[in-house]
Amino acid sequence: MSKVLFAAAAAIFWTCSASAADDAALWRKVDPADLVLIETKYGTTAVELAPAFAPRHVERLKALIRAHFYDGLSFYRVIEGFVAQGGAGEATAATSNKPKDAQKTAQWPPLKREFERPIGPDTRFTPLGSPDLFAKQVGHVDGFPVGRDPKMHTEWIVHCPGTFAFARDNAPDTATTEFYIVIGEAPRRLDRNLTAFGRVVDGMQYLQKLERGNPAIDNGVISDPSKQDRIVSMRLAVDIPAAERPDYEVMRTDTKAFAAWKANKKNPAPGFYFRQPPPILDVCLAPVPSRKLVAAP
Amino acid sequence: MSKVLFAAAAAIFWTCSASAADDAALWRKVDPADLVLIETKYGTTAVELAPAFAPRHVERLKALIRAHFYDGLSFYRVIEGFVAQGGAGEATAATSNKPKDAQKTAQWPPLKREFERPIGPDTRFTPLGSPDLFAKQVGHVDGFPVGRDPKMHTEWIVHCPGTFAFARDNAPDTATTEFYIVIGEAPRRLDRNLTAFGRVVDGMQYLQKLERGNPAIDNGVISDPSKQDRIVSMRLAVDIPAAERPDYEVMRTDTKAFAAWKANKKNPAPGFYFRQPPPILDVCLAPVPSRKLVAAP
Repeated sequence: MSKVLFAAAAAIFWTCSASAADDAALWRKVDPADLVLIETKYGTTAVELAPAFAPRHVERLKALIRAHFYDGLSFYRVIEGFVAQGGAGEATAATSNKPKDAQKTAQWPPLKREFERPIGPDTRFTPLGSPDLFAKQVGHVDGFPVGRDPKMHTEWIVHCPGTFAFARDNAPDTATTEFYIVIGEAPRRLDRNLTAFGRVVDGMQYLQKLERGNPAIDNGVISDPSKQDRIVSMRLAVDIPAAERPDYEVMRTDTKAFAAWKANKKNPAPGFYFRQPPPILDVCLAPVPSRKLVAAP
Repeated sequence: MSKVLFAAAAAIFWTCSASAADDAALWRKVDPADLVLIETKYGTTAVELAPAFAPRHVERLKALIRAHFYDGLSFYRVIEGFVAQGGAGEATAATSNKPKDAQKTAQWPPLKREFERPIGPDTRFTPLGSPDLFAKQVGHVDGFPVGRDPKMHTEWIVHCPGTFAFARDNAPDTATTEFYIVIGEAPRRLDRNLTAFGRVVDGMQYLQKLERGNPAIDNGVISDPSKQDRIVSMRLAVDIPAAERPDYEVMRTDTKAFAAWKANKKNPAPGFYFRQPPPILDVCLAPVPSRKLVAAP
């Protein structure tokens, strides 16, 4: 007797294989130049960047990674159900023994915001086909969850679990080096308020293991630096020899196969459900499948 | 320079104090008879039960706990972004070396479903005051996130991060001993399809550290039993001497103070926001604050 919650598990990481022809049509290889590998003692988390959404931020992040800026720094502000924030740290009372290193960060001037971008003619936006409470329209662009404002003709990557973005101060154009990754219930209020420019394609579970701060104290910054989990390294996959780096694929989101995948999520097959759920698909509850390619033995 | 995501962190665990009079009016003590303490090697997670929503399931869980049913068993099916499921385990191919122990579970006959309950005249339901995609109405009852169907005159605890429920087989009246706790983006499609009867009031971060299964393989069951994290013990707080047990309080949800708390979430103070977010409050993004009482030194 199998005790299951529901028939089809929400697989976010696929290991199944198909024919080569199917693969090319249904899956897109993640460009190693846009693949970030964040190593902690728990494992490696893979993030795909979206330069088309935020070219300045992507350029900055790559420069920081190649300057080994993050190596040895930490996830210093980790709030359960919200975000894991990493980098040089905040110069707060509780972290006075490890303030933001002015010398280390001074060479990285504040970036102009890239909270949203104009909708272009070449965007492969695929509407989700389900209502959303926060955006007039939601859907996907190349696997990224995207919100749209038809009136302003702009679009942006929305804050779902796994969304990668740069933190900032109160003024909008103040992001420099600090990043965060959403690890909890989608904080959609942050949409269009910070520059989101990537998403986790593997290894969310390692971020979940990170030591948490207390959100009621010092804004969630972990007061004892020795308890902050270290960023062992952050690397771009393209900087690792091809034979050694991991390869990822993301399901294409402009295909009939993806439409069928969404329809199945929206209207799950009967069998388990006693009461058919409302035909609603939350853009953040349906992360686009990704998979790691494993060499044949 | 403080690098913050936003001004007011989403505190789910408060340590602040107030006058005794304020406390009684604003906070409700969790009845130790309804407080479950789940101990793993990562720490203790506290769950408040809601007997008013599912008396049969609460009675069963308490009997199981007092029979030490769960002690030494494991979280055998843990899916990142979804649920952590614990108990005797599933008799699947991958777990054939640790099938569900028929003898152990046979004495616990299937329970009749308690997916929803009739709306009673005495319910302290407080509407959230924000739309919802899955239920006609949402709000809170004694701190629990609740959905309502005015037409059917029923209400139920919704599936938010931290919601505690019993798993079942495909037939509706088949829950026996296996439980799950939501650890990811709210799987609202499960609302009214399983009996949800509690929520985590402390220690979500320990559940996040649990070893994950691969959702694409064997429905997320961790195939190697030695990798499943153990339930060291599950206890009712009331069974622990008063001087030794933890005491929790939950913010009352039928007060003006809670209404103000919600209004602040819905319309965050300016300062950080470049673009004021839509005045939307997700019932699952606003977990009702809880706090652990710590004795004065």
